[in-house]
Amino acid sequence: MKGFEAFDDVQRAVVVAAHPDDLECCCGGVVTMLVARGVPVFSANCTLGDIGAQEGDIVRPALAANRLRETEDAARLLGLSGTFNLGHHDGELLPDLELRSQIARLYRITQADTVLTFDPHWPGQIHPDHRAAGQAALDAYMPAKMPLYRPEQLHEPGAALCNLQRVFLFSTERDLDVCVDVTNVYPGKLAACMAHVSQFPKGEESLSWLKEMDGRAGQRIGVQYAEAFRTMLVW
Amino acid sequence: MKGFEAFDDVQRAVVVAAHPDDLECCCGGVVTMLVARGVPVFSANCTLGDIGAQEGDIVRPALAANRLRETEDAARLLGLSGTFNLGHHDGELLPDLELRSQIARLYRITQADTVLTFDPHWPGQIHPDHRAAGQAALDAYMPAKMPLYRPEQLHEPGAALCNLQRVFLFSTERDLDVCVDVTNVYPGKLAACMAHVSQFPKGEESLSWLKEMDGRAGQRIGVQYAEAFRTMLVW
Amino acid sequence: MKGFEAFDDVQRAVVVAAHPDDLECCCGGVVTMLVARGVPVFSANCTLGDIGAQEGDIVRPALAANRLRETEDAARLLGLSGTFNLGHHDGELLPDLELRSQIARLYRITQADTVLTFDPHWPGQIHPDHRAAGQAALDAYMPAKMPLYRPEQLHEPGAALCNLQRVFLFSTERDLDVCVDVTNVYPGKLAACMAHVSQFPKGEESLSWLKEMDGRAGQRIGVQYAEAFRTMLVW
Amino acid sequence: MKGFEAFDDVQRAVVVAAHPDDLECCCGGVVTMLVARGVPVFSANCTLGDIGAQEGDIVRPALAANRLRETEDAARLLGLSGTFNLGHHDGELLPDLELRSQIARLYRITQADTVLTFDPHWPGQIHPDHRAAGQAALDAYMPAKMPLYRPEQLHEPGAALCNLQRVFLFSTERDLDVCVDVTNVYPGKLAACMAHVSQFPKGEESLSWLKEMDGRAGQRIGVQYAEAFRTMLVW
Amino acid sequence: MKGFEAFDDVQRAVVVAAHPDDLECCCGGVVTMLVARGVPVFSANCTLGDIGAQEGDIVRPALAANRLRETEDAARLLGLSGTFNLGHHDGELLPDLELRSQIARLYRITQADTVLTFDPHWPGQIHPDHRAAGQAALDAYMPAKMPLYRPEQLHEPGAALCNLQRVFLFSTERDLDVCVDVTNVYPGKLAACMAHVSQFPKGEESLSWLKEMDGRAGQRIGVQYAEAFRTMLVW
Amino acid sequence: MKGFEAFDDVQRAVVVAAHPDDLECCCGGVVTMLVARGVPVFSANCTLGDIGAQEGDIVRPALAANRLRETEDAARLLGLSGTFNLGHHDGELLPDLELRSQIARLYRITQADTVLTFDPHWPGQIHPDHRAAGQAALDAYMPAKMPLYRPEQLHEPGAALCNLQRVFLFSTERDLDVCVDVTNVYPGKLAACMAHVSQFPKGEESLSWLKEMDGRAGQRIGVQYAEAFRTMLVW
Repeated sequence: MKGFEAFDDVQRAVVVAAHPDDLECCCGGVVTMLVARGVPVFSANCTLGDIGAQEGDIVRPALAANRLRETEDAARLLGLSGTFNLGHHDGELLPDLELRSQIARLYRITQADTVLTFDPHWPGQIHPDHRAAGQAALDAYMPAKMPLYRPEQLHEPGAALCNLQRVFLFSTERDLDVCVDVTNVYPGKLAACMAHVSQFPKGEESLSWLKEMDGRAGQRIGVQYAEAFRTMLVW
Repeated sequence: MKGFEAFDDVQRAVVVAAHPDDLECCCGGVVTMLVARGVPVFSANCTLGDIGAQEGDIVRPALAANRLRETEDAARLLGLSGTFNLGHHDGELLPDLELRSQIARLYRITQADTVLTFDPHWPGQIHPDHRAAGQAALDAYMPAKMPLYRPEQLHEPGAALCNLQRVFLFSTERDLDVCVDVTNVYPGKLAACMAHVSQFPKGEESLSWLKEMDGRAGQRIGVQYAEAFRTMLVW
Repeated sequence: MKGFEAFDDVQRAVVVAAHPDDLECCCGGVVTMLVARGVPVFSANCTLGDIGAQEGDIVRPALAANRLRETEDAARLLGLSGTFNLGHHDGELLPDLELRSQIARLYRITQADTVLTFDPHWPGQIHPDHRAAGQAALDAYMPAKMPLYRPEQLHEPGAALCNLQRVFLFSTERDLDVCVDVTNVYPGKLAACMAHVSQFPKGEESLSWLKEMDGRAGQRIGVQYAEAFRTMLVW
Repeated sequence: MKGFEAFDDVQRAVVVAAHPDDLECCCGGVVTMLVARGVPVFSANCTLGDIGAQEGDIVRPALAANRLRETEDAARLLGLSGTFNLGHHDGELLPDLELRSQIARLYRITQADTVLTFDPHWPGQIHPDHRAAGQAALDAYMPAKMPLYRPEQLHEPGAALCNLQRVFLFSTERDLDVCVDVTNVYPGKLAACMAHVSQFPKGEESLSWLKEMDGRAGQRIGVQYAEAFRTMLVW
Repeated sequence: MKGFEAFDDVQRAVVVAAHPDDLECCCGGVVTMLVARGVPVFSANCTLGDIGAQEGDIVRPALAANRLRETEDAARLLGLSGTFNLGHHDGELLPDLELRSQIARLYRITQADTVLTFDPHWPGQIHPDHRAAGQAALDAYMPAKMPLYRPEQLHEPGAALCNLQRVFLFSTERDLDVCVDVTNVYPGKLAACMAHVSQFPKGEESLSWLKEMDGRAGQRIGVQYAEAFRTMLVW
Repeated sequence: MKGFEAFDDVQRAVVVAAHPDDLECCCGGVVTMLVARGVPVFSANCTLGDIGAQEGDIVRPALAANRLRETEDAARLLGLSGTFNLGHHDGELLPDLELRSQIARLYRITQADTVLTFDPHWPGQIHPDHRAAGQAALDAYMPAKMPLYRPEQLHEPGAALCNLQRVFLFSTERDLDVCVDVTNVYPGKLAACMAHVSQFPKGEESLSWLKEMDGRAGQRIGVQYAEAFRTMLVW
């Protein structure tokens, strides 16, 4: 089991998530540590998070607009270098060719060398959007490296062939091989999560489940809070 | 390995299957035991089973009509509280957004607290419809709990947000953790299967493979016949 | 771990691959040995391989045309009994109903008893086309055996219900159970690969990765070069 | 305005309709006259007609099975040379590539020189299935003539490139140029319609609308009953 | 050319439009007159209008949320009995089966006897969403009358089979047969349009094109402002 | 009926066609005259023309590659400023959202003020690809003018909002209002057509149908050869 040293070679990262608060909850600690080391980190949320409400008394576009603002608030706290929202509907994300193409474009324009995303292969994943986001993020990897795939994407200023060299999968219990102590940055992680006011209206109280989850990961390596990952060998 | 006590908290169940005889073959014993305990059980077959013939001398709609009748016959024997057929074509079921929505509606109108379905993650599953039914049943779980997902479904009399709290996956050899002794109810299970006359034209003789399979499951826990499951932690 | 004896009952085989050089690289050794034994072997490539270039200075149809020619060249070297290309675009293969139907047709007209294909369940598979080809190859198995599934396919001269009886999955590290010593036929395997000049422009030098990979498989059974498979129980 | 002489060169015809009773109602008279002249006529119904009921107390597959039987009954009365049902759902027919391919196959295996179908361009057509059937029938014309379009269709015994040379559009009021006196064969037309018992349960009484419609067409040319068409110049 | 008497039998109407301001601009005068006569009028906008901005400095969900509010404001001014938004994306509306089903549901729950919608057959219609909305509105007519089409829609409180009996097509120059003098209600029409502040930021000044268009229609019948329609015979 | 003066304001044009030889045959004369006046003209072919062969003895990608070369040859003869091929399959073009987006991108990067395309509304059009190309070309017009539609397209160097101001529809007999005398440039038109050797293998002899068609158009205005158009009012 490796720790943060597994991220030693990361120089530029993109997080492909499904909903506006996924990055913060699933890898907000590691992202904070990467940013602190000077690594530009970009976030890409596939959906608008537009069914993310316990009550039905808000229209979906208004909820989506709120969540885009919360995303920006959290990104400022985390020091992200840029955020993207791919505009799909919450609860209905599919790993189709359109999503693949959108993510390939992000790989090409961010020139990230590292992607963090959901593990699409963990059988315990009950949220279909999580699996779809992770699957599409992996599926975009190969085509994005080929010049004949959607070549118009390479015309955008700053774009070049996909430069990804490593993959970290989160939200998984499958063959974990990286577990990072995030205790020191945990207050910042919580603050970023709490920027998603619509999701955690009672602040830290709404996040007890997260502290419990990160605490369980911490127990694996004998620290208070940790974030766990499965790496994937790519070529 | 748990036994029938794994079903202790079940008060209302729905079985999401692919073909008209799947419920009977895969979990007919447990269903019988649940019904005997007073639990309302609903069946949902995603396809019409309309290629389920060894000869090509019947038109598909006629076969489908036969199988709907056999479904009702078996349901009467089992004491089911209701049956649904989602109308898709046998051999061509896809876990797409339409199927997800249909199943979400059933979760909402049956108000089941428990779903039994195919394990979509077992790599040994050769039937694509089985995997599709199981995947869609899991994919519908999260959205069905959210009020902004297909809100018109909640207008139906008796409908409310999805109340599912547990998942039992059948037709799997992946990390089994429940194995229920169904020896006592086995004659009833066989009778329900035999109600599918089109599939088992020679009655019990056509079901030797099933007795063998349930017998192998029985060996795991030292009984004559058993049905095995994999539970899934949901939240 | 079985060796080539795992293929003892094979009398007629089809390889369902994604790109024009997959067969050669993934199971070219075993195919060579089957052909030597007199087994007719057919190849089916789902895509045209039309983004398979490191430079963007060729139009995709011209690349595809080149690769179809290279496929024929390699097939001649291997002694294949026939080649099929299903015409899909490289980097965008989906395991949808159309691909399923195309593969079912091949099962029916080749009357193969054995299929070799990509393992769609290996989580380490980074190429989406590989997973799609393998998934579709498995998904076509059941329907192709049923007379009411796409019955017009059975009108073609020589066609009959699918006769498949065994499945070998390649390009996988999941629960390997067959590993075949291909050392003796390795020069022929390399020659067949090198027939794909567009992919391996420097000949054997471009194939060092393959020799390394097959060498690692060889170490499992103490030989120089081997090809590894996962079998799948079907019914 | 031409009469039946517009059909003088017809030697082999196919009618592409949407529902099981469309042929009989829209061109049953002309079909009767063609058959009487020795012309083989084939019918192709795109949908199963499976929502064609005024009450909801029948399951759709049973209704479909009934209508397939009624189709055969009517075909026997009319002396058709063959009937095809393309299996789509009533009320949901789309002129997509799958339907186009199915119809192209029929053109190729029937070797018809003439197609009769719905006018997809008549703005007064309120039934979406009618427009879809007509559009698909026209869209299939060109591709079916090309050897590289779905070449496997040409493997079927008796199949050859599409031989269509003329198109008659029915169910239209757009620029009518053919109006055929069907008074003499009208009893037979009515009998064929009445074979669709599920649709016209009161026999001729249920068909007063049709007699009125055909009567209005008759008035155009001064006869009791007529069927009107719009021809289309094709190349 | 008929006037407002063409609407004499209307007792309950639904307007199927594409964007939040279409109803107001295309038939706001007639709607005002119907409401004044006591006719309940419902509006259904197929898209969110979420690309309806001349500048790119607003995120799409925020624009959509604004437009939903403007829709409600205009509806209050017009006295509509209810508004529906079907949630599709502006500039990308398709007349597919999902949209057909959504509109069929509205026909069934509003129990309207009259629909007003875009003419999908006018060749001068340059906006694809307009054509799509009109086409889907017509396509939904037949299926919505059949009990076996999406029968779960009939479970909603107040729903029954579609009761539509007449169709008025607007935004057309094809064979106009109704032209209604809306001069007296024109200030109200303009006020309703101006409720769409995002579209007409300069108020009446932004609507000179509309006054010109309605003025041209007025010239047909010798009044200041008119709205023109094409009726469609349905059965 | 206007002549070439209808093109007086054209300063930059794009032709949206379906197959590699459509531009040359349908409006090659007018294009020649525009280029001679210094107007940059771009061609966009939606399909590869890959079923455009009378014999089945060539593989489709090879045919496509040939036709791309022929397109370049013809473009050189005509003096086009650029050619685009959108890569769709011949005989299967659909006016879907992907094609709409591809064409919108071309409008934005060419900054054409005029588009020439197939009339999608002419009921005599038997080729489905022609109708699809024309429909998509019209459908892309509105969205391409909106900054929130596919905004990433505007990042490409040289791209800006769609600047189209006029539409000329060809291959139509519907309400023609422009007919241009192309007699003087006819040899050049024929030469451009003959550059499509695969289609017109016998040179001018293969083009007698075209000379006849253009001759009939010429008769409308009393010249030897003409090309006819229908303009469309856009806003």
